[in-house]
Amino acid sequence: MLVDGTPRRTIWTEGDVAQIIDQSALPHRFVTLPLRTLADAAHAIASMQVRGAPLIGVAAAYGLALGLREDPSDAAAARHKTALIATRPTAVNLRWAVDTAWARVRSFPPNERAAAAWRVAGAMADADVAACEKLAEHGFDALSRHARGKALNVLTHCNAGWLATIDWGTALAPVYLAAQRGMSVQVFVDETRPRNQGASLTAWELAHAGIPHTVIVDNAGGLLMQRGQIDACIVGTDRTTRGGDVCNKIGTYLKALAAKDNDVPFYVAVPTSSYDPATDRGEDVVIEERAEDEVHWMSGVDERGEVSRVRVTPLGAHAKNPGFDITRAALVTGYVTEVGVLGAADLEAHLAPLV
Amino acid sequence: MLVDGTPRRTIWTEGDVAQIIDQSALPHRFVTLPLRTLADAAHAIASMQVRGAPLIGVAAAYGLALGLREDPSDAAAARHKTALIATRPTAVNLRWAVDTAWARVRSFPPNERAAAAWRVAGAMADADVAACEKLAEHGFDALSRHARGKALNVLTHCNAGWLATIDWGTALAPVYLAAQRGMSVQVFVDETRPRNQGASLTAWELAHAGIPHTVIVDNAGGLLMQRGQIDACIVGTDRTTRGGDVCNKIGTYLKALAAKDNDVPFYVAVPTSSYDPATDRGEDVVIEERAEDEVHWMSGVDERGEVSRVRVTPLGAHAKNPGFDITRAALVTGYVTEVGVLGAADLEAHLAPLV
Repeated sequence: MLVDGTPRRTIWTEGDVAQIIDQSALPHRFVTLPLRTLADAAHAIASMQVRGAPLIGVAAAYGLALGLREDPSDAAAARHKTALIATRPTAVNLRWAVDTAWARVRSFPPNERAAAAWRVAGAMADADVAACEKLAEHGFDALSRHARGKALNVLTHCNAGWLATIDWGTALAPVYLAAQRGMSVQVFVDETRPRNQGASLTAWELAHAGIPHTVIVDNAGGLLMQRGQIDACIVGTDRTTRGGDVCNKIGTYLKALAAKDNDVPFYVAVPTSSYDPATDRGEDVVIEERAEDEVHWMSGVDERGEVSRVRVTPLGAHAKNPGFDITRAALVTGYVTEVGVLGAADLEAHLAPLV
Repeated sequence: MLVDGTPRRTIWTEGDVAQIIDQSALPHRFVTLPLRTLADAAHAIASMQVRGAPLIGVAAAYGLALGLREDPSDAAAARHKTALIATRPTAVNLRWAVDTAWARVRSFPPNERAAAAWRVAGAMADADVAACEKLAEHGFDALSRHARGKALNVLTHCNAGWLATIDWGTALAPVYLAAQRGMSVQVFVDETRPRNQGASLTAWELAHAGIPHTVIVDNAGGLLMQRGQIDACIVGTDRTTRGGDVCNKIGTYLKALAAKDNDVPFYVAVPTSSYDPATDRGEDVVIEERAEDEVHWMSGVDERGEVSRVRVTPLGAHAKNPGFDITRAALVTGYVTEVGVLGAADLEAHLAPLV
């Protein structure tokens, strides 16, 4: 998608270096960073310089390739995989990408594994773009049915736009397609505390794409639905279980409850790589507890335009910071996937096994 | 309640000046401010130096007295009332306090009205403290039934503590009483974007009272209820309609939905002055739209310990900032009032007409 008019992906290669957009600097600065080592990749994932389940997967695959460049032995590969998977416990794509990349290169002679893994990572990136394009078509069909005339008011939570993937995005892909096809789209963007991925990343993406959008605090979406101002909700997922329980950014569940209560359709965009048939139910998903300081401190630009942070809680206050919650299948109107908009009962049959 | 060990109220008099705690400086600085004129009082209410429905009412009554000191004529009184009521459209206490104070002094000769209104404002403050004490007893009875053993985990939204009233608070009054009576209480404090009254005011109050508490983002309460970590929710109200629909800080509705979905009792503390039998239903309440900048900018202390603010949204982004939402009566387990814990059907019979 466009950044200041230039087409961009979230991760790409320049020679033997992988390059990323440092998303922790957005929306105030556009900075790219090189990943030269496995440690660079692991740090980028853990510190959320890259985030979003599909992007994490591809970044981890490049990380494995970089690790194999340092040491391609079987024993080292096991350590590389463990180090990468440990960076973010909830996103199923991470484990899938690392396991898949290794499965495809382990039969190579050790001195060819790094190059092979590099090619696998690139192929995963291209496959992700193709998947998001298909998902966009199906999501557009679903959302456009809820438009009033040619106008559509969509609410989204967190960032499941192109920054969360390689390009296009998942939840926002149908929105981009709708805008390209001339539909009048307005996106209500949940701020998404504590890390503000909505206010920072989703708002930034939509501004660069020229799509009208309004930032709201996470508390406000319920009222907008009560007042009939939202035609549909669409969110991404970090992991969707076999039966369709959706693990996604903390707060998703509250919006799904409000959607149900107000008869607003609630869609979840599920790339195949985020579907986890090995996990039965939402209760079985490990919820990542993140650092307290994400709650205590808020980043932005100060009055002088410099990137700064302020502490919003009293000194000494204790905080708890779970990263995700569970939206059970009964609250989901439809799952927007590469193969169509599915019901919960159809997920297992239609989404191919991952590995 | 205590501030650094000293008993305090939120508003008091020193000679012919009303004094307030400037709540916009909390939790980082404790500052008191004099109200010498009606304009001072109106500014304090509109800028949320004082906030919380009961406190707004008393501050407005002092504001009327200060206005009458400048001009006690009937014509001026009408202007004073209009100016005060316009500061915050949603809180019913504001109109009630101003109308009541004027009704009690209009029969006085003009040159006695200011002094009479001053006494009325003081009596309203004392009556509010007495009401909160009664409410604390009834709320304690209700909450203690949900304690597991001697421990109680409570979730609250926004600030309905003593800072929102004159002393004790509404939603937090039963918590303070429980702690005084030796119950082990843990309060989960919703941050309450956009103005962070939870993270700043509620956390500050509870710290000064020595009550264990944990700040969470507004998105997190649903997960805690899913995981069985909340025994009861209790919130305040800016206005509760005849049939029990609760207008309260934006986001209250989402927590009420999660409470219902997880069989967690959801209580609303309703001082009589916040009950509005003249409004039939929640849909009839005017929802205050506040300034966009409350969403764009976040206040706190910076790394140097200085009060500062940062912009969290991209420059040029548009925001929408409704202040309240509606929790319909069916989502409320009980209304904690001065006369007992009531069901929606009992509100009208038990809460005396206001004027």
